Amino acid sequence: VTQAGSPVATELIERVLAGERRAVARLISLIENGADGVEEALARLYPATGNAYTVGITGASGSGKSTLTDRLVAAFRAGGSEVGVIAIDPSSPFTGGAILGDRVRMQGHATDRGVFIRSMATRGHLGGLALATPQAIRVLDAAGKPWIFVETVGVGQSEVEVVEATDTTVVVVNPGWGDSVQANKAGLLEIGEIFVVNKADRPGTREAMRDLEQMLEFGHRGAGWRPPVLAAVAAEGTGTAELREAILAHRRHLEEGGGLAAERRRRAADEVRRIVMERAAAAARRCCTGAAFEALVDAVAGRSLDPYAAARSIEGV
Amino acid sequence: VTQAGSPVATELIERVLAGERRAVARLISLIENGADGVEEALARLYPATGNAYTVGITGASGSGKSTLTDRLVAAFRAGGSEVGVIAIDPSSPFTGGAILGDRVRMQGHATDRGVFIRSMATRGHLGGLALATPQAIRVLDAAGKPWIFVETVGVGQSEVEVVEATDTTVVVVNPGWGDSVQANKAGLLEIGEIFVVNKADRPGTREAMRDLEQMLEFGHRGAGWRPPVLAAVAAEGTGTAELREAILAHRRHLEEGGGLAAERRRRAADEVRRIVMERAAAAARRCCTGAAFEALVDAVAGRSLDPYAAARSIEGV
Repeated sequence: VTQAGSPVATELIERVLAGERRAVARLISLIENGADGVEEALARLYPATGNAYTVGITGASGSGKSTLTDRLVAAFRAGGSEVGVIAIDPSSPFTGGAILGDRVRMQGHATDRGVFIRSMATRGHLGGLALATPQAIRVLDAAGKPWIFVETVGVGQSEVEVVEATDTTVVVVNPGWGDSVQANKAGLLEIGEIFVVNKADRPGTREAMRDLEQMLEFGHRGAGWRPPVLAAVAAEGTGTAELREAILAHRRHLEEGGGLAAERRRRAADEVRRIVMERAAAAARRCCTGAAFEALVDAVAGRSLDPYAAARSIEGV
Repeated sequence: VTQAGSPVATELIERVLAGERRAVARLISLIENGADGVEEALARLYPATGNAYTVGITGASGSGKSTLTDRLVAAFRAGGSEVGVIAIDPSSPFTGGAILGDRVRMQGHATDRGVFIRSMATRGHLGGLALATPQAIRVLDAAGKPWIFVETVGVGQSEVEVVEATDTTVVVVNPGWGDSVQANKAGLLEIGEIFVVNKADRPGTREAMRDLEQMLEFGHRGAGWRPPVLAAVAAEGTGTAELREAILAHRRHLEEGGGLAAERRRRAADEVRRIVMERAAAAARRCCTGAAFEALVDAVAGRSLDPYAAARSIEGV
């Protein structure tokens, strides 16, 4: 239920477009909560989006991803760019307060008006983070941030979906990573456009890099792009400049080869498809309540109607 | 797309109702493959179902679940009952050939006409095993098996959904289980109506039983039923008789307290809801293909239409 054109949304839109920080934070909160009016608000922001370049950063918990993101923000700021950061914790039920540790860590940028950092969980959003993340990205995009970093905790399916909504995906691993994230290794290898072995002052770094290189031999979905494997010690700032260079190189690769437009169109199709699915699911859920539904279930329980016939009659098909 | 009343289905139905083994096997294969005509076939079987009592057996891979099921089948056969067994492997892509080891193990019953054993995976079934399993149970039910055992490999969400479609759920663990299935411990504790510590000749059995008892102190969703914690060494046949007694006791508890009808009605509601959701998802997927969809995606990629407006226009809402 969208309250189209509610006054709150209208005022917010103007303030977001003007780049006002509190308005940006407020609209992202509304997205998290799946508030009424958000769809309409985002529809009006939409023509002002598409200018930002987005970078996803993912990896197992404890891989030093947040520290790396922190250093990367500093590197891009040093290059003169404004930066937006969305730190996502799919497992956290707390709105706004997700990944508290990361927020604290990133407070080095707290006084920098050119950096907007926001933790995000999901509470009421229809479709979860896979749909909320592109919405939040659009808010920062419309607010004029030319670089947006999306950091996720964990390496599961939902994290993969989140970072797939970005232009360049950086996968952060550690020496010895192969043992710990076995479950979704293939998924990470497939989505990564840049790999970073962080904590590279530890034993096993060379082996981890060689393993990655070998696995990447078997191909990567991005045509013409061989994902580089970098080493970093984010805690000491080592490797950050090289990572920034690799991101810029991947962006050039996409822009010059026409891949960026194709990739963004593919993501637009994915997003529309996902929204359609979520709306259909919500409509189906609404149909499965109330007296008429209970009467059908009684008939099924009494064996006078089979479950499939009951389902067909609910949909009116 | 259901080919209602196809000749094959009609003939099959009659043979299944007559308890013919090959017809039962054939219809379960059609269910696995999501074949045309299955819904109609099952609709016609439906009035002849509801007589079987179903027992789900789940636990981590390697817990000795299959051996326990094997012994349990023998115990029920010794009591004079015919038995159906469906062994489910959600992770296997192979139809009919799932859990080959289990089939071999259960060959002690191969010549017993009172036992029907079937491994099942899912290939084409809409909604996966959560919907295919109740369908397969219904086939055995209509074929006259009064006891049906559903065994699953693994302890993840889909296994939980599968065994939740049964009247009594047996959870099999081993000494030291707490460390290995940490991920879904709470889920297993919640669904189990009977717990068995198998391989109880190993160290740590007493601790495992005490741990379970303590965790079960915190309550179980089944009103008035305190899940017993049993010890077994299935490989030697120890504990099987006690497990059979516990299953019979839980059945009496459900039947005498009116819980069985209530529980089955709740499951009927769940199944109808799940079918409605799957049908809605399938319809949504169909809408997201073709030239009209591609034109909408072009508009979204070109920023002249936002993704939510595109989704709304697809549904015609």
